[in-house]
Amino acid sequence: MNIDDLAQQAGEWLRGEGPESDIVISSRVRLARNLQDFPFVPRADEEARGEICDLLRRHILRSEFAQEILYVDLTDTAEIDTRFLVERHLISRELASSEGPRAVAFGANEVVSIMTNEEDHLRIQSLRSGLSLSETWAEARRVDELLEEKLTHAFHPQFGYLTACPTNVGTGMRVSVMLHLPALVYTKQIEKVFNAVSKINLTVRGLYGEGTQASGDFYQISNQVTLGVSEETILETVSRVAPRIIRYERDIREHLMRESRTSLEDRVWRAFGVLTNARVITSEETMEQLSMLRLGVNTGLIDSVPIRTVNELFILTQPGHLQKVAGGHLDGPARDEARASYVRERLGG
Amino acid sequence: MNIDDLAQQAGEWLRGEGPESDIVISSRVRLARNLQDFPFVPRADEEARGEICDLLRRHILRSEFAQEILYVDLTDTAEIDTRFLVERHLISRELASSEGPRAVAFGANEVVSIMTNEEDHLRIQSLRSGLSLSETWAEARRVDELLEEKLTHAFHPQFGYLTACPTNVGTGMRVSVMLHLPALVYTKQIEKVFNAVSKINLTVRGLYGEGTQASGDFYQISNQVTLGVSEETILETVSRVAPRIIRYERDIREHLMRESRTSLEDRVWRAFGVLTNARVITSEETMEQLSMLRLGVNTGLIDSVPIRTVNELFILTQPGHLQKVAGGHLDGPARDEARASYVRERLGG
Repeated sequence: MNIDDLAQQAGEWLRGEGPESDIVISSRVRLARNLQDFPFVPRADEEARGEICDLLRRHILRSEFAQEILYVDLTDTAEIDTRFLVERHLISRELASSEGPRAVAFGANEVVSIMTNEEDHLRIQSLRSGLSLSETWAEARRVDELLEEKLTHAFHPQFGYLTACPTNVGTGMRVSVMLHLPALVYTKQIEKVFNAVSKINLTVRGLYGEGTQASGDFYQISNQVTLGVSEETILETVSRVAPRIIRYERDIREHLMRESRTSLEDRVWRAFGVLTNARVITSEETMEQLSMLRLGVNTGLIDSVPIRTVNELFILTQPGHLQKVAGGHLDGPARDEARASYVRERLGG
Repeated sequence: MNIDDLAQQAGEWLRGEGPESDIVISSRVRLARNLQDFPFVPRADEEARGEICDLLRRHILRSEFAQEILYVDLTDTAEIDTRFLVERHLISRELASSEGPRAVAFGANEVVSIMTNEEDHLRIQSLRSGLSLSETWAEARRVDELLEEKLTHAFHPQFGYLTACPTNVGTGMRVSVMLHLPALVYTKQIEKVFNAVSKINLTVRGLYGEGTQASGDFYQISNQVTLGVSEETILETVSRVAPRIIRYERDIREHLMRESRTSLEDRVWRAFGVLTNARVITSEETMEQLSMLRLGVNTGLIDSVPIRTVNELFILTQPGHLQKVAGGHLDGPARDEARASYVRERLGG
């Protein structure tokens, strides 16, 4: 298996099933870990980073954390491939744009991925579709324990896991849910959610994490604090808040269906009309129209499109994926054409 | 035959055939005539108007100007019907909104229509699809002569026909062509046409004549001067200018097809996408999208829609027609829904 094999479909987390999957795209747990005997990545020179990478590579592959593991050395990987891995949520934008020895390993179903030499030596991620924080956490912990058997992590008895950035010290854990909140955006109620969420020390981010804009009405809610709280408490906080936002979004959807069904119907069918007919479409507009299409499918207003197709299109229409499918570099205008053509094909337009 | 029978289709001038019909929607000749023995309409009281109307009614019906004549007394006609007749170009907006005894008579194919008690006692109109000014003029003249056999018109040996408004004195003739100029609008070249046309004493108007905005990229080019020129000269002027504008529009279409085919394709297919999927659509947006669809059909970019359907939709989606089809009054929002539904049905969306 190599990266090219992944381009035509999306991983487990996009299958669009799992609990509350009309609103919850995915649940994610990420653990930051560092080796005791090496300097943190920002302070490690090229040589040290090389050693870290080699050491972790051996352990990761030996751990057999997944059935079929793809290990991608990112040192000399083409930009098109790193972009692709970012779009797929297998690596962070930071890892993609940094330099020197670094890698990612992930299982064939893309549930678990392990980055080496990102901000921390190790970043273990578990990502599943729908609201399934316990399973996602269990999976991350299993892999964490598997690796810890053979590695000695930087750990302080009082603080917990030590990390390159102080905001991750303690559990080194970030728990997040990716929510699709088109009705809250459509009715301009989303700000209320942000305000409520920030009061309980949760953070709201866009589709590609820190510093990215929410596009396609996707919002990632995650914990801000990792120090002085247990993993269970973090998990519990997110698990408690997510259903409230879900209910809020769902209530508004029901309200729209009751009170302004025709406008909503108009909006979602127009999105379908544009997606199945456009000959040129930007990534941004695609996200926006797909978001409305997704709302249409999830409210039952549109029943001819499988939700999995819609979910996949969010990712498969990103620049890296498009270029992977096209088999080479495409400039902006060519991408907008290729995107329109791909979307029409997938939606039978 | 009555008005209701007309609602489901459109007349001869919208069949979308005839010379240059990709650009020329219709050719029109209108003659203003007044009876010598009566005051002009603006100066005639209710009683005089009644007499004029009765007299003309007899003559018009007796003239058998068309095979199957529909005579509509507008005195007490419901607003929905007058609106309908305006949309169909059988009566003017002025006649619709004026009061007192007034009427229109037209043949089943709607080529000739005769208004009584509009601004002038008689307004004879001949309207055909495509660029066919000679036939249209021949038809108007035939009907004019037919009526003049039995009527004595207000005529001055030096000036010619006398009319209520001085701008019509002389020939009483207005010759116009309705042009569809989407490429000139799209490339912002339309102003140039206006400037050129106004220099040779021609006027540019919208779809519904004087004082109406050009919607759907339709522009009506007509003569400004009726006095001191012969009918043939007027006809000749419009006949000479129309082909130049047509060539200009056609050149730009070809240029677009050569240089920015993808953008054009995108624009026309998006129009198709919106029209076949919208659940709510205003009259204005419908005109705009239909204009692009028409351009798509006429450039061969879209071949699944017959041009006649597109032409008819411009008229059949107007408020009066929609209400006729619905069989009663529809308020604004209900019309926008009915319009969207009708357009989808006609375009097989």
